[in-house]
Amino acid sequence: MNEERLKKQFAFIEEIDKEKNVFRQTYLADGKRKENDAEHSWHLAVMAMLMCEHANEDIDVYRTMSMVLIHDLIEIDAGDTYAYDAQGNKTKREREIKAADRLFNILPKDQAEKMRGLWDEFEAGITPEAKFANSLDKLQPIMLNNASGGKSWEEHGVCASQVYKRNAKTPDGSRAMWEYAEKNFIEPNLGRSLSDDREK
Amino acid sequence: MNEERLKKQFAFIEEIDKEKNVFRQTYLADGKRKENDAEHSWHLAVMAMLMCEHANEDIDVYRTMSMVLIHDLIEIDAGDTYAYDAQGNKTKREREIKAADRLFNILPKDQAEKMRGLWDEFEAGITPEAKFANSLDKLQPIMLNNASGGKSWEEHGVCASQVYKRNAKTPDGSRAMWEYAEKNFIEPNLGRSLSDDREK
Repeated sequence: MNEERLKKQFAFIEEIDKEKNVFRQTYLADGKRKENDAEHSWHLAVMAMLMCEHANEDIDVYRTMSMVLIHDLIEIDAGDTYAYDAQGNKTKREREIKAADRLFNILPKDQAEKMRGLWDEFEAGITPEAKFANSLDKLQPIMLNNASGGKSWEEHGVCASQVYKRNAKTPDGSRAMWEYAEKNFIEPNLGRSLSDDREK
Repeated sequence: MNEERLKKQFAFIEEIDKEKNVFRQTYLADGKRKENDAEHSWHLAVMAMLMCEHANEDIDVYRTMSMVLIHDLIEIDAGDTYAYDAQGNKTKREREIKAADRLFNILPKDQAEKMRGLWDEFEAGITPEAKFANSLDKLQPIMLNNASGGKSWEEHGVCASQVYKRNAKTPDGSRAMWEYAEKNFIEPNLGRSLSDDREK
């Protein structure tokens, strides 16, 4: 029994090694290469641990951390869809659900259900934990974009209105972190790497 | 006050982005490139979440997860010391303590102390959480080594006796996981990528 569970668990742990090869559009802080999903998820988990005090609502940090650690696994099959890729975002949900059906079911049934539940919760973005996790997921690339001189925004010709639209719900997880990010990571890039197309 | 804390916390979060550029000697499962510390730490955190049931003693999973997420940060300054590098291992401890003194102190004082405490606990390897975290830290590269056909063991001419010596304490965190790894990840490589120099 134990061996059967271990076999499934290790098969999953080995399978998810592939997340290290799913590259995002965000550059590392030094701007030298793009970040992959495993690195991104690690970064979010450390942020959850250290910045949970800034969540708008009381959160279970362990639950939040678990959520961010697994939130991008489905991209092993579905690929990373860039935030500002309108076409890709139309088929995103369908591709991701198919991926979740395959991936989580490598695990023993009880754990497959638990992981799927966590991913669904993250996607729905309703619980305090999911709201905070989603905010971290948005704030981390904004921080890195600023650190790398707005390299990814520039590369994709991203406008300020797109960043603000995409982050409409980011303050829902943490107003304090959003305000800090807006002032320190977005505003200094306006009119530079980030063209300012907002109406005055 | 909040802004002062956020400034320090974001400075730390940005600084630790460098962990994504600290490369280990272990290859990814597909054998195509070596793994970095951020990816490795993410992998251990997912293992902690899914495999905590195999720990010898009851553990606080959140605490274990926090520990593995930050256990290699000191390598940003100290570099990765390969498990079987005898020379490097002589100066490892001194280099790592200096790194811990600099890195964790980027955080607000209370969090710097907490992170340092977690790292010290991991290094001491005495609490149930630290024992399990240390076992994960040893088992994950063994799993990846097996998946990549023993590529890293072969590259460094590692012998079975070295693997067993290095893993003397691995069963202390989880006997079940160690036994599974021995049977499925080590033994199939004996006399192949891993030369068997043990006395019969």
